[in-house]
Amino acid sequence: MSELALAAFAAATDAHLVGVPRSTRFASFAQTFDAGAELARLQTLGFRFVARSDARFPPLLRAIHDPPPGLFLRGEAEVELLARPAVAIVGARACSAYGRQIARALGRDLAAAGLVVVSGLARGIDAEAHRGALEGGGTTVAVLGCGIDRDYPAAHRDLAREIARTGLVVSEYPPGVEPAPWRFPARNRIVAGLCAAAVVVEARERSGALITADFALEEGREVFAVPGEITSALSAGANALLRLGATPLTGAGDVLESYGLEHVAAAVRKVGAAATSVLARVREGAAGADELGRRTGLGAGELAAALTELELAGAVHVEDGIYRASG
Amino acid sequence: MSELALAAFAAATDAHLVGVPRSTRFASFAQTFDAGAELARLQTLGFRFVARSDARFPPLLRAIHDPPPGLFLRGEAEVELLARPAVAIVGARACSAYGRQIARALGRDLAAAGLVVVSGLARGIDAEAHRGALEGGGTTVAVLGCGIDRDYPAAHRDLAREIARTGLVVSEYPPGVEPAPWRFPARNRIVAGLCAAAVVVEARERSGALITADFALEEGREVFAVPGEITSALSAGANALLRLGATPLTGAGDVLESYGLEHVAAAVRKVGAAATSVLARVREGAAGADELGRRTGLGAGELAAALTELELAGAVHVEDGIYRASG
Repeated sequence: MSELALAAFAAATDAHLVGVPRSTRFASFAQTFDAGAELARLQTLGFRFVARSDARFPPLLRAIHDPPPGLFLRGEAEVELLARPAVAIVGARACSAYGRQIARALGRDLAAAGLVVVSGLARGIDAEAHRGALEGGGTTVAVLGCGIDRDYPAAHRDLAREIARTGLVVSEYPPGVEPAPWRFPARNRIVAGLCAAAVVVEARERSGALITADFALEEGREVFAVPGEITSALSAGANALLRLGATPLTGAGDVLESYGLEHVAAAVRKVGAAATSVLARVREGAAGADELGRRTGLGAGELAAALTELELAGAVHVEDGIYRASG
Repeated sequence: MSELALAAFAAATDAHLVGVPRSTRFASFAQTFDAGAELARLQTLGFRFVARSDARFPPLLRAIHDPPPGLFLRGEAEVELLARPAVAIVGARACSAYGRQIARALGRDLAAAGLVVVSGLARGIDAEAHRGALEGGGTTVAVLGCGIDRDYPAAHRDLAREIARTGLVVSEYPPGVEPAPWRFPARNRIVAGLCAAAVVVEARERSGALITADFALEEGREVFAVPGEITSALSAGANALLRLGATPLTGAGDVLESYGLEHVAAAVRKVGAAATSVLARVREGAAGADELGRRTGLGAGELAAALTELELAGAVHVEDGIYRASG
């Protein structure tokens, strides 16, 4: 299994390697590399390795111009999960309440419709997309820029564990490899490579999510961008993608349509008359309670009751005191 | 001057007429129509009429498939103003603070760069675009769906007067014609027809601004749409236009580029260190003072001082307690 040796050599030399290098250094490394012992180490850790030459290696990822030698896998799902129709959801780590809400709702709706949601386990948009997918009862795949034993970032250890329960945590790096800045763009090519489409929810200009979008575009995958206010720096990257020709995403249905899937809208529980009128005002644009009081003319008590009713029904989300209609 | 007779006949019969009808009714109307008396009446009112056959009739408007017989004009500007490079800025009447701010800033920046800003004198986006253009020291044209003596809506009487001081208020309807619902879509074709490009700032689905955009697309004019949050019904129309292929507008420079003009950014006054740090946080997304306090870690007094400094410098706008970076 020369790909396992290649993966180990790349990790040991901090190199980005696609094919076997014609160096004496690799030749001597391969001669002493004990594949059996490495596979035994993986098994002890509860991990697996799927080589690029393996028929089960995800075909879309094999098709990119620099596929990794193989993927290390952690989690309960079969490797075939990686060959199922998948969508990448990526974006800013320090995202806004708007971005968080959209990423969560997209993760939920796309996973519920049967797509595998792929992201990078980072803070912000990535984590919300994974959480949404789990909420939606679907499966999700986290691609790491370090070994799959690293739990990076540390705050997402429990999330990684939950993802692994029904999905997979994957990496091209063997267990033990520490995160390093140059590994994140490399990781992003795998996020994009596993998916027929990538969604950029919220991203600054010149950010990692745009690198993922670039990889997707280069490989001929569809790129969706979520429109946002042009006065928000956090939407500058997504809006710039729209100018470059990305498809505007206005709802989960837009993505599902491109996969030939149907959108099953979440059933909205019936709410009372006051709540219905408040919901109509919230749909006009995100607003705080004061502003909603002015828009609806309701008293503070009645408004608070209506907002609570809408939150319980899943029709509005609140964050930092700003109410938004659910995506 | 048969076009004046045609315009008068169309108004008298509530008809949308482009060419001379082959009816005995028009023939008898034309026979008794006193063009000289009508011109004298216009002159008394301080108005003018430019017929479609007049060499000074705006060429872009003449090129649409159903140009009006002529235009009635009110204002100090020469009719040649209507042949200058112009841009339509349109959108919702009941717009949000975001839409208001963008319309105002676009009107200002595009007019300051030399474009004539054309809109419909309606509440909301239209009025902000006109006001911005006047603020920018440029000229603006209001196209009415009623006679140019009507001051419709009444709340915009002063605005119409201000527009007329340096620009024009125009209509295909003779003085005295009252506003009627069917005249507004007809008016929108003139707004679009006068301009090489139309900008939709904020619009609901199935709204008047989208009719203007449709006219512009049909006539092969460029259509820009301002991206907005996909959870806001007020941005649903603009985001839907993006899906249909409209050009995303992320700043005045995008429009100016398509006219071959350069964007002269307004000079931003220098502000202190605290204000600079607050501005960076506001640029991350619209937020209230509480949220900005959390984002910046500044005390309430220091934050309030910084926000006042930024408002005076024109770097941020506040509405309904929500601060936004200036467009």
